[in-house]
This record gives sequence, structure tokens and C-alpha cells, in this order.
Amino acid sequence: MNVSVSQVAAMIDHAILKPELTRTQVDADLALAAAYKIFCVCVRPSDISHAVSTLEGSGVAVGTVIGFPHGTTSTTAKVAEVIQGIADGAVEFDMVLNIGWLRSGMVAEVEADIRAVVEAAHGSLVKVILETAYLSDDEIVQGCRAAEAAGADFVKTATGFAGGGATVPHLKLMRASVSDAVQVKASGGVRSLDTLLEMLALGVTRFGTSATATILDDLAKRDAGEIGPGVIDERSY
Amino acid sequence: MNVSVSQVAAMIDHAILKPELTRTQVDADLALAAAYKIFCVCVRPSDISHAVSTLEGSGVAVGTVIGFPHGTTSTTAKVAEVIQGIADGAVEFDMVLNIGWLRSGMVAEVEADIRAVVEAAHGSLVKVILETAYLSDDEIVQGCRAAEAAGADFVKTATGFAGGGATVPHLKLMRASVSDAVQVKASGGVRSLDTLLEMLALGVTRFGTSATATILDDLAKRDAGEIGPGVIDERSY
Repeated sequence: MNVSVSQVAAMIDHAILKPELTRTQVDADLALAAAYKIFCVCVRPSDISHAVSTLEGSGVAVGTVIGFPHGTTSTTAKVAEVIQGIADGAVEFDMVLNIGWLRSGMVAEVEADIRAVVEAAHGSLVKVILETAYLSDDEIVQGCRAAEAAGADFVKTATGFAGGGATVPHLKLMRASVSDAVQVKASGGVRSLDTLLEMLALGVTRFGTSATATILDDLAKRDAGEIGPGVIDERSY
Repeated sequence: MNVSVSQVAAMIDHAILKPELTRTQVDADLALAAAYKIFCVCVRPSDISHAVSTLEGSGVAVGTVIGFPHGTTSTTAKVAEVIQGIADGAVEFDMVLNIGWLRSGMVAEVEADIRAVVEAAHGSLVKVILETAYLSDDEIVQGCRAAEAAGADFVKTATGFAGGGATVPHLKLMRASVSDAVQVKASGGVRSLDTLLEMLALGVTRFGTSATATILDDLAKRDAGEIGPGVIDERSY
């Protein structure tokens, strides 16, 4: 699979989500996102306005997270977050589903929670974070189906804060559990170019990472022949 | 310091906050809280209604968390969480302050965020979680002062999800940074009776823990003379 730096950049949501990040650290990440012309930054809700004004004219979209990272806030609170996020200028919403409910077999409640967020988003893109580290394969399938039934645009692996992240078996399972109308975003542990390319070949179309510079620099070097084809090319990506 | 089992139980907020807990696991913790007659359970927002109905008549209060665990949601979302929490029957609110703002010197913004939650709580108890693991001593002092200026009832150490927790130096600093009108809650790492008693001697008046059974069982055994006085009594607590 031959992909260019700009093609990969257009599939990256650059994550700026750690709770302890200062304004200065956030600004450095926003500048990086603009410099690499990545698709979208995924920022903390309280940073949306600042990110929107900072990135004005850069072509980088601003997304945010909802019910993050535990997914255990009330549906009312998730909806309030979306409404405030839209007002602040966010155009994509990565919501955490209610993990405890999913693990308790309360799938109808999970679906209703997602649907309320999708409706509040009024056509803005909604990605549903499953937090796969906590789920059985059966729960992953149920979570994916609930997300699609509720009208979500993406299913997404992880928050990056639960100790687990995107794995090839989970991504395959997620891709197989939704129709072509729903895309798959890999997040949590997407820290190298090889990992990203392996996941791309599985049908993943968006990548959440904070290792954006490493990934895109490595791809640029590989394209320039500065580093060998490596394992990835041997596998004929 | 001689304290009875019932006195310690009356200072415990039993934490039931992990995102992956099933309804069955939550129910087991609610039953434990009722059996030990602890003061309060601290539940996930989406569990409030269930906890209130389950604990009806038990004498155990139901509290919840706001902006948990990152503190980076918008003030609007935190207020929406409080309003929904009151509607669902919660009577205490443990909110996470905006850690990134505090670390960026945006103390006025931190205080305004807390004040909005305190006002929305309409007299219900508000505890402000600092997440001390991410803060310098100076930031801890500033966070404590902002919490008191904003009308909070407690300052609290940690969420339990940031890898750090309550330490003796941080608790001393927090106790010294607020007036007697503000209480201190220790949370994160309060997993043994000895730890709790040591913190109690520092002026801590509330303890957030999920090791409630261990702590109270150990105190009951000590009172019954089944275990020796140990290090604690030698230090004349």
C-alpha cells in the first residue's frame, strides 16, 4: 500500500488530551498540527475555543471528546457537552459509551445514550469509543452494533487512558461488526508508522495519536529512501 | 487517637467509580456500604438513581463526581452534571478542578469554574479534587485557596486514576492552605487502617477509599484485641 505523507496526515486526529497539559504545551501541539497539515486535532473540551481561534485559517479541524475518558457521565451531561462543544466551534465528537452498561448487558441503554449524542451533534461527526481493553469480543460486537444503530459515524478503540489500546484482532472484529457506512478509528498505542500502515490495511480510516510527528517524519524519510523498506514493505503494504 | 469503627465509618466515602464496573459489581459495593453503615458512597453519575433507590432507608448518603476524572470538561458541562445529579438524588459532589488551567497560572478561571459548580449545587456539599500528582506545592496552595474563595466545602487530593494519591506532605500542605471552614478529604492510596489513622491525625476528616471493608475489619479486630497495637499505637495516635 503506497500512501503519501499528505494522505496519512489527512487521516490523523492529533490527540491533545492529557489532563495535566498546560496552555503552552497545548499551543505547541496546535502548532505541530498546523505545520503537518493534519486533518483534525482532538482537544479537551475546555480548550476548544482556544484551539479554534489558534488554528483559524490553518485548514486543521477541531474535534473534542464527550464523557471522556470514563463514559459514565449521564446522557444529559453528554448532550450538554456536545451543545457547548458546537457553540465553541468543535466539528467532531469522540464520545465514550457507557462501558459499565455495556458490560452489564444494558445494550438498549448504551444505544439510547449514543443516539442522544448523535442527535445533539446535528450532523457533526460522532465517533464512539468502545474502550476495548475492558470488553469481551462479544461486548465489542454489541457496542459496534449499538453505535451503528444509534447513527454514529465511527467506532473507535480506546481513550488511551485505560492501559490498553488498538490491537489488530480488535480492529478486525470492529471492522467486521459494522456496515460500510460506519468507519473505524484506531486509537491508543498508535505510535509508529508501521503500526499505522498495518491498521490502514485492515480498513481503518482514521488514527488517533499523539505521535504524529514521528509517524509523518518516518513516512517522509521512507519516501525519500533515507530508511529501508523494512518489515512493512516486505509484507507488500 | 482512639476512634471507634462507627466513627471511622462515618468519615468514609466508599468509592464505586471504576468505569468498567458492572451493575452486579456496583450492587455488591452498595450492599457493603449499607452493611458497614459508612457515611456516603461516591458513585458514577450514571449510577446515582440506581444507588439512591438501592440504598433507600440504609442511612448511607449518595454522592457523585463532576468533571471526573480529568477536570477538563467545560464549566457548562460541569454545571449540567450537578443539576442532573441533584435531580437523580445525589447530595455530595466531588468535582475535579481544571488541572491544565491551574498549571498554566489561570487561577481566576479555576476559581470561576469551581464557583459555578458550588452555585449549581445549591448548598449541597462540594469537594474540590486537586489531583495533586500533577501539581507543584505552589499549585496545590493556589488550588486550595481558589477552592475556598469559590465557596467549596472540602479540598481533596486525588481521583485515584492519575497514578498518584494522598501523601502526608500534600495533606499537611492542603490543611495549612485553607481555613478551618474548609475540610480536607484524603483519596487515592487510602488502603489500610494505619494510613487512615495517620491521615486522621493530620486533620483529615473524610476518606475516599474502596478498601472500606479491610479498613473497618482491621479496626474492629484491633478494638477486640485480636491484633496487636502495632506501629500506630506506639506513635500514640
